[in-house]
Amino acid sequence: MGEHFIIDSTMQDFDLTISVLFRHGQRVHGRSRVISFDGEALRSVPFAEVAARTERLAAALASLGVERGDRVATLMWNSQEHLEAYFAVPGMGAILHTLNLRLAPGDLAQVMSEAGDKVVIAHGSLLPLLTAVSGAVATLETVLLVDDPGMPPPRAPEGEGSIQYVGYEDALAGAAGGAPPWPELDERTPAAICYTSGTTDFPRGVAYSHRSTFLHAMCVASGACFGNNDAERVLPLVPMFHVNAWGLPYAAWMLGSDLVMPHRWLLGGPACQLIKLARPTQACGVPTIWASLIEYADAHPDEVDFSSLRLITSGGSALPEPLMKAFRDRYGIQMAQGWGMTETSPVCTWARVGVPGEREGKPLSAGRIVPGVEMRAVAPDGTVAPWDGQTAGEIEVRGPWVTGRYIAADGRAAGNRFHDGWLRTGDLGTIDEDGSLVLADRLKDVIKSGGEWISSLRLENELLSHPAVLDVAVIGVPDDKWGERPMAFIVLRAQEQAGEAELAAHLEDRVPHFWVPSHWSYVSEIPKTTVGKIDKLALREWARQPG
Amino acid sequence: MGEHFIIDSTMQDFDLTISVLFRHGQRVHGRSRVISFDGEALRSVPFAEVAARTERLAAALASLGVERGDRVATLMWNSQEHLEAYFAVPGMGAILHTLNLRLAPGDLAQVMSEAGDKVVIAHGSLLPLLTAVSGAVATLETVLLVDDPGMPPPRAPEGEGSIQYVGYEDALAGAAGGAPPWPELDERTPAAICYTSGTTDFPRGVAYSHRSTFLHAMCVASGACFGNNDAERVLPLVPMFHVNAWGLPYAAWMLGSDLVMPHRWLLGGPACQLIKLARPTQACGVPTIWASLIEYADAHPDEVDFSSLRLITSGGSALPEPLMKAFRDRYGIQMAQGWGMTETSPVCTWARVGVPGEREGKPLSAGRIVPGVEMRAVAPDGTVAPWDGQTAGEIEVRGPWVTGRYIAADGRAAGNRFHDGWLRTGDLGTIDEDGSLVLADRLKDVIKSGGEWISSLRLENELLSHPAVLDVAVIGVPDDKWGERPMAFIVLRAQEQAGEAELAAHLEDRVPHFWVPSHWSYVSEIPKTTVGKIDKLALREWARQPG
Repeated sequence: MGEHFIIDSTMQDFDLTISVLFRHGQRVHGRSRVISFDGEALRSVPFAEVAARTERLAAALASLGVERGDRVATLMWNSQEHLEAYFAVPGMGAILHTLNLRLAPGDLAQVMSEAGDKVVIAHGSLLPLLTAVSGAVATLETVLLVDDPGMPPPRAPEGEGSIQYVGYEDALAGAAGGAPPWPELDERTPAAICYTSGTTDFPRGVAYSHRSTFLHAMCVASGACFGNNDAERVLPLVPMFHVNAWGLPYAAWMLGSDLVMPHRWLLGGPACQLIKLARPTQACGVPTIWASLIEYADAHPDEVDFSSLRLITSGGSALPEPLMKAFRDRYGIQMAQGWGMTETSPVCTWARVGVPGEREGKPLSAGRIVPGVEMRAVAPDGTVAPWDGQTAGEIEVRGPWVTGRYIAADGRAAGNRFHDGWLRTGDLGTIDEDGSLVLADRLKDVIKSGGEWISSLRLENELLSHPAVLDVAVIGVPDDKWGERPMAFIVLRAQEQAGEAELAAHLEDRVPHFWVPSHWSYVSEIPKTTVGKIDKLALREWARQPG
Repeated sequence: MGEHFIIDSTMQDFDLTISVLFRHGQRVHGRSRVISFDGEALRSVPFAEVAARTERLAAALASLGVERGDRVATLMWNSQEHLEAYFAVPGMGAILHTLNLRLAPGDLAQVMSEAGDKVVIAHGSLLPLLTAVSGAVATLETVLLVDDPGMPPPRAPEGEGSIQYVGYEDALAGAAGGAPPWPELDERTPAAICYTSGTTDFPRGVAYSHRSTFLHAMCVASGACFGNNDAERVLPLVPMFHVNAWGLPYAAWMLGSDLVMPHRWLLGGPACQLIKLARPTQACGVPTIWASLIEYADAHPDEVDFSSLRLITSGGSALPEPLMKAFRDRYGIQMAQGWGMTETSPVCTWARVGVPGEREGKPLSAGRIVPGVEMRAVAPDGTVAPWDGQTAGEIEVRGPWVTGRYIAADGRAAGNRFHDGWLRTGDLGTIDEDGSLVLADRLKDVIKSGGEWISSLRLENELLSHPAVLDVAVIGVPDDKWGERPMAFIVLRAQEQAGEAELAAHLEDRVPHFWVPSHWSYVSEIPKTTVGKIDKLALREWARQPG
């Protein structure tokens, strides 16, 4: 019947690059603002000016010898200069390597060496850390030093003759004029490197591409996540040195949302002061930050003003329900929760929490799967669990912003982290019929007691709902009869008391009887990792000590 | 300094396909609803069931001999079955060809032949149109007939023995069970064909890819456009037979927004009845639709209930300000405007209109450039116009959902529509410093008078703001002294009067003196094209007639 012929797509070949996002914010949203905090006052700069400085930064890096594919690291707080690096480094075809400034110096030297960093853009306050490691990084040539106004000019520390120190503002001033230095790049060009925080083993690196960064920003910008526009003012209290601050800097720039830069003032009083001054409509960070804000607000009710905040998004670990309720009921702020990891750019799930109605009223959920990401729970027998909210399995993900491997090729890194094209997250959880993820535990933290699973995470959340408990951690400890039994570490609030019997009774109403911990320890603090997660390795070590 | 080595992106290869969008809505938003209207009552079906039917449709098409790359056309209203075809046809690797049911039969036969359509999914009410053309389409093998309940079973019309007629529901019933028929596809696989409406010449076809459709849906889903989520209920009054109904079916499915399907009841009383019954939060369509709703509401104030509507988005042609104000001031509904064309998937700009504040209070704007699309205005001398809101030029666009060519390779189609990798839109306009587009005119409609440009579009909008004017069109007619002079065609409202002198005086306050038309004609109706635009070709023809 008639001749057969082929019709191909007629769409343009158009690469999804960070330069496209950059130019969009520069041109369409040139009047939106980046608002910086110096611990006391604000400085507000339009996107158009930030963009002009970004172009000068790229020119300056080129004149320092940075070429396509070279790695340019940042050792920086959340600042306007960090944002400039976010666009200039990938835009010029080099690779941004955001350094986790809470890593141990040995780990920091190792990730810098593995990445082969050529230039580091560093803030003056972090110079002691940098100089402790820079000698061990053979590839390092130049430190571009960002300093608070009024600091003395940079100079090379003793014994580092081979590394040149250049002032950031000097470099920009010397690079004025010229055409925008944005080459045409294939969208699969690497844009940025990020290492995992290495809670349990050596940090592993992934390399985001321009394409993955662009698509992740589009997802974060969608109504399935923030859905922001240029009427919003976003405060990222989540660090820009880790996982691109959830992609918020890129999404906010693309949408023309004002960006409030907290620099190193991320917690308690100074963060409250910043919120009062800069009046963000949104803030994003980990539960530790929200707890510190509420604690400060409780102690200084006359000093805080959260009235500008419409939405707070929490991630990194489960949002305790009392915290959610405190912001919602006392300040009228909607809370949301997202979940993801370094390997996933990071956003895989997102949802408003504590909202009445069947679709979003799921306080235990880490969020619903976002468009573009595919997720499944794989039971120990290898079968894919149904989405019934009951059947637990290891959570596996795939998608255009999910890593398919790690940078290092020496075998140490990859291991058994991939399964048939999916990333194994190492998290145990369930998915329900609405695509809501409930995390049961890290696979390595789940407690196997008498052939059953006990979720340490769930126990922690239930214990946190007791009014006397300030912080908590639960681990499994060896048990001759049951294999493992739960042990709880409790930090009580000042002036509060709650004995083992009272906490056990509190749990009896909420979890199966055999989940109630067999061992209790009252401590003054829970050890945390560099990104604020409970350091269960340290606790297990501690529990193993005799006596 | 240290060894030099290359770091590549570690991100997964993951194709952006319509199947990914489909599975997301199916799994994560299975409880969202498609709500169908039969002119009197509603039927509500969950996404999960629509998805199961979509899988059966793909299996049925395969059993009818549809293979990868084959063209499956639709001759359908906005309906659940049309939505099923939107996912089933591209998902199985075939190509969806949505037929404009307002095309002339000759044009329809020609586009079907050029596309080589093998199967047509058609609604029974459109069978007369189909049988008028099907004999001229050599590639056509099967008609899959969708009918209103209670219609007699389909059979081949006289003299069409070679084309088989199959009932849509019969085909689905015969295709139950089996695995989801979604092959892994490269993202640049063609997904859908759409032809321009051919206002001034033969319709030209473009082929959207899976990638372009996915990315366009993400953009439509972003806060720069609708930013919807699963709390919304979207009513597309813009036809699904043209430019994928602005990508709304894909975006709504992906986000879990309920979809209200108006079928053939797009105007006036029936559309008002549908809004009252289905209570959408959003509706989208062309100004003609909004005018018909207001007209009906004025005449039957007790019958309408627009209280569910939060946002109305208008596109296709400029939104007259009185219409915007009517919805905003009388019903408290926010209005938005978008702009695009068949060649651009279509969304290129979007903005809320009539909102106070510098950023969005631009009633003349067609919207702000959306992320992913790049735009420029090119002056007649070939220079790129500055974004000053003043300097007009032909609007050119590029981006991942913009076409780079047309389907037909015979030279007829491409012509001079591309310029250095950009699509020439044929629209004359300005861009301001916020990336807001103001369209001055179609390049071919602009009136050249005494060496100056007169915008027929602007004159039409200013004339429409006169209370006695119901509809209007302005064209240029030859003039010995000035080259061209404007001629206005006026449709007055019933019982209203406004002579040439009065309308000229109305314009004198609003446009330069020399813009005021030299010729006036009072008519009972303005001729429109198949997609509701003014048919200026017909008007010029008419004006050329002697006497």
